[in-house]
Amino acid sequence: MSPSSVPDIVIGRLPLYLRALSHITGDGQKVISSHEMGEHLGISPAQIRKDLSHFGEFGKQGTGYIVDHLRGQLQRILGVVQEWDVALVGAGAVGNAIMRYGGFSGRGFRISVVFDNDPDKIGRRIKQLEVIPEERMSSTIQKMGIRVAMLAVPAEHAQEVAKKLVEAGVKAILNYAPVNLMVPSHVHVQHIDPVIGLQRMTYFLTTKLAQR
Amino acid sequence: MSPSSVPDIVIGRLPLYLRALSHITGDGQKVISSHEMGEHLGISPAQIRKDLSHFGEFGKQGTGYIVDHLRGQLQRILGVVQEWDVALVGAGAVGNAIMRYGGFSGRGFRISVVFDNDPDKIGRRIKQLEVIPEERMSSTIQKMGIRVAMLAVPAEHAQEVAKKLVEAGVKAILNYAPVNLMVPSHVHVQHIDPVIGLQRMTYFLTTKLAQR
Repeated sequence: MSPSSVPDIVIGRLPLYLRALSHITGDGQKVISSHEMGEHLGISPAQIRKDLSHFGEFGKQGTGYIVDHLRGQLQRILGVVQEWDVALVGAGAVGNAIMRYGGFSGRGFRISVVFDNDPDKIGRRIKQLEVIPEERMSSTIQKMGIRVAMLAVPAEHAQEVAKKLVEAGVKAILNYAPVNLMVPSHVHVQHIDPVIGLQRMTYFLTTKLAQR
Repeated sequence: MSPSSVPDIVIGRLPLYLRALSHITGDGQKVISSHEMGEHLGISPAQIRKDLSHFGEFGKQGTGYIVDHLRGQLQRILGVVQEWDVALVGAGAVGNAIMRYGGFSGRGFRISVVFDNDPDKIGRRIKQLEVIPEERMSSTIQKMGIRVAMLAVPAEHAQEVAKKLVEAGVKAILNYAPVNLMVPSHVHVQHIDPVIGLQRMTYFLTTKLAQR
């Protein structure tokens, strides 16, 4: 099956598998069954086997998956064998939290440049990186060949910045602003919006309450 | 169709529809077609119509959806007609960014209490809320009848806090720590992990590069 025909929902689960395998490697475990992975993740073993089968044969019936091998294959499939340079736009409370987030290391991404348009923030350093004025964003991103950006600016400013990022060559935007972004179809956007996650859960709480 | 038989992936899209409709209401638009919604969201009109059809008839062929009506129905389905009290655990950089996030208002959630175990943070106020010591977390959550929590503590502390939250009656956890949580099956967990969103996009960038 060619990669482009793998359903989007399957792609969305691969990073969860990779994260689980990384924890398991950290614990020193060498082999894992789809059953055990399922328990870690709250996903059925059959679903896990089916998802992985889109990309080849990674395990043997009855013996499970070699953790290091499967992890390496998922890193390759997801394109995170090497690290991507990431541009962060916005050095406010959210941008600061992103800079201090401990979860990027060894997972394929490194924040390489930070922009803001606030004169009070420009020139300051957050974790070794100097905040660069937003007017130098396009030229800097082009020069560095950056393809991935995180958007942590106020909602009313997000669309305008996204447009500039795309014009500068960015192909993937992780958007922290609580707005939808309109971008060309070749550009990928994922949203970090806590309310989306919360509402997805209250659906089930509400349904359960109604059933009592 | 009973709510429990609606696929999880459909539930996951409803908050995106609600967010788009809220923006459209803000712009004063009264009626919207699935085609126009699809353009906003990058989701096909057929998918949107199919998703919504799980819950009844919201639009008429050829005239589109009444924005206010559909918005109200989605709020009801997702259980966010009224506001849920939310407990935030962790008053560090991430907790602070969450407290200052402008996207909760009018979307069904209000952070009602904040906990931390750091003596330097306890007793301080973030946006009117006093930081409460974590040892009073269980009793406070029980007393307030809180069902929804956000977890913004260091990774190594997250599982232990999650266990206490569940014991105190929490049914839905939005987890900002970069670890999987093991919780009973009746408890819902959603992860806010930027790397998951980034890896989901680099899959496509890598695939496209390989095709060139």
